[in-house]
Amino acid sequence: MASFAVLGAGGWGIALALRLEQNGHKVVLWEAFPDRAKTIRESRENPDFLPGVIIPPTIDVIDDLKTAIQGRDAVVSALPSHVLRSVFEILSKLSFVQGLIVSGTKGIENETLLRMSEVIASADKRISADRIVVLSGPSHAEEVGRGIPTTVVAASSNSDAARRVQSWFMGPAFRVYTSGDVAGVEWGGALKNVIAIAAGISDGVGFGDNTKAALIIRGIVEITRLGTALGAKADTFSGLSGMGDLIVTCASRHSRNRFVGEEIGKGRTLEDVLGSMAMVAEGVRATQAAMALSEKHDIDMPITREVHEILFNRKNPKQAMVDLMTRNPKAEG
Amino acid sequence: MASFAVLGAGGWGIALALRLEQNGHKVVLWEAFPDRAKTIRESRENPDFLPGVIIPPTIDVIDDLKTAIQGRDAVVSALPSHVLRSVFEILSKLSFVQGLIVSGTKGIENETLLRMSEVIASADKRISADRIVVLSGPSHAEEVGRGIPTTVVAASSNSDAARRVQSWFMGPAFRVYTSGDVAGVEWGGALKNVIAIAAGISDGVGFGDNTKAALIIRGIVEITRLGTALGAKADTFSGLSGMGDLIVTCASRHSRNRFVGEEIGKGRTLEDVLGSMAMVAEGVRATQAAMALSEKHDIDMPITREVHEILFNRKNPKQAMVDLMTRNPKAEG
Repeated sequence: MASFAVLGAGGWGIALALRLEQNGHKVVLWEAFPDRAKTIRESRENPDFLPGVIIPPTIDVIDDLKTAIQGRDAVVSALPSHVLRSVFEILSKLSFVQGLIVSGTKGIENETLLRMSEVIASADKRISADRIVVLSGPSHAEEVGRGIPTTVVAASSNSDAARRVQSWFMGPAFRVYTSGDVAGVEWGGALKNVIAIAAGISDGVGFGDNTKAALIIRGIVEITRLGTALGAKADTFSGLSGMGDLIVTCASRHSRNRFVGEEIGKGRTLEDVLGSMAMVAEGVRATQAAMALSEKHDIDMPITREVHEILFNRKNPKQAMVDLMTRNPKAEG
Repeated sequence: MASFAVLGAGGWGIALALRLEQNGHKVVLWEAFPDRAKTIRESRENPDFLPGVIIPPTIDVIDDLKTAIQGRDAVVSALPSHVLRSVFEILSKLSFVQGLIVSGTKGIENETLLRMSEVIASADKRISADRIVVLSGPSHAEEVGRGIPTTVVAASSNSDAARRVQSWFMGPAFRVYTSGDVAGVEWGGALKNVIAIAAGISDGVGFGDNTKAALIIRGIVEITRLGTALGAKADTFSGLSGMGDLIVTCASRHSRNRFVGEEIGKGRTLEDVLGSMAMVAEGVRATQAAMALSEKHDIDMPITREVHEILFNRKNPKQAMVDLMTRNPKAEG
């Protein structure tokens, strides 16, 4: 039995806390806002982000960060990408984080173009890369929280650390594979959102399953081109954290990124769509980051370029699709 | 402008004939049954397989095979897998097939374990492999027939032939990539149906999108293992004809293979499900072929094995899923 702090009591934090608790581990769930922590602690659920999933009394829900992380075998981040740096900066002043850091956060830091594990290590200099394990894959929190069979990857430069995380989380409804390719797993999780927007646009203009499958396959091809230029391994993008996560995101009626694309495909502007959303669509920022990276490294990314044109230069979505289809004939490889 | 015979006036045959016709080519559509050919010729649609898609008068629909194939630049097969051999055996006695053969047929010949292009070459010995081009990818006929943007692969050992097929078919709604890996393209198209059954079983027992994505990703891993042992290139299985086709099949409400899995996941027996279906579910035979091949080549295929156990040994589907999830912990690669 090991002891964990899970940072972030949203859907993903609760789902991960439940996986650990059901394997017999001790888990404390940290929520930044005291009143929300109190509500969740007393009602035993988060009605906004994971309604109907009960948090057992063995999991304490607290708002004190220092108490939360003290003496744990691992601290698990289920924080949104835009608060990750500030929480770990606070931690760096507050207390020495022991044990491993499991990062369940996906995204790219826009100003720095850093991956999330790099943000953690840069926010708290005492956390070395070999103490960080990234957990990622096709894992809607709504399903993980309900014990629906799910399969993910635990990636670390430290294979021992990856195997420890595997053994902690693995159970009859949660299968964990290890990987040594942290960069590949993190780039896949961040860049898939660009393709999810493209898939949504295709849905919005009334195209079909053939079109969406083509965007997914050719999308992974260009993500792989960029990712390998950034040091990742090509095979990782065909795996659970790349293609796997992309498939669930593009199929999901709930994906915010796919939704943004669909609305734009129907003719709305980006400002209009974003203005009406409570939550951030990570993929809009990821599109800017991917464009910047593709130009910097001189990588051909036709789908990303068309999504960028549609989102930021109001290119007609149907015209963008025709332009994608009628490029010069090519070989597949 | 080139001249084509499309063999088979089902959904796929009509859809391919329309792509060619809209590129300005001359196309004749061959249907084996005279009365059905007459109905289609007169009504200008196939109400059973592609209702609502109109066949223009420039496309002749005939039942005479010799006339159909005489003097064409290419003969396009959109025949069901179980009649492919007999049609090409008839052709071998009837007339010399000139030009290229485009094979749009997917499957494995169960008795011989041959791929479809191998069946063609074995049925008519005068057709050498370098005259055959395989056309495959995520391409529901319902969408191709309606001009929904679709992307496929044209694969041949003869790169010149593949490029000719690419140039004939390519248009604003039909993008064709070339490939040199005929074996990979054909094995992907045939073996995906085993995983489609697994995905259906997962749906039938009430599992979720996470589960299905995991089956797709780990399914391609084991298909790739088998395919490379049979001479295919690994990368092909990540492409349009492998993963791409698998994605549309597993997402589709219309896939017969996914449907068979879903009904079995709900508790029906294979005999019962097959007995109630008008059409054949290719994946049931593909599961037997894949099991035979995996044993012959000593390839670990855990998903195929569980599907085989469920279909033919009445293993409980939920138990099979738990057995898949709780195998020994592994690395992803």
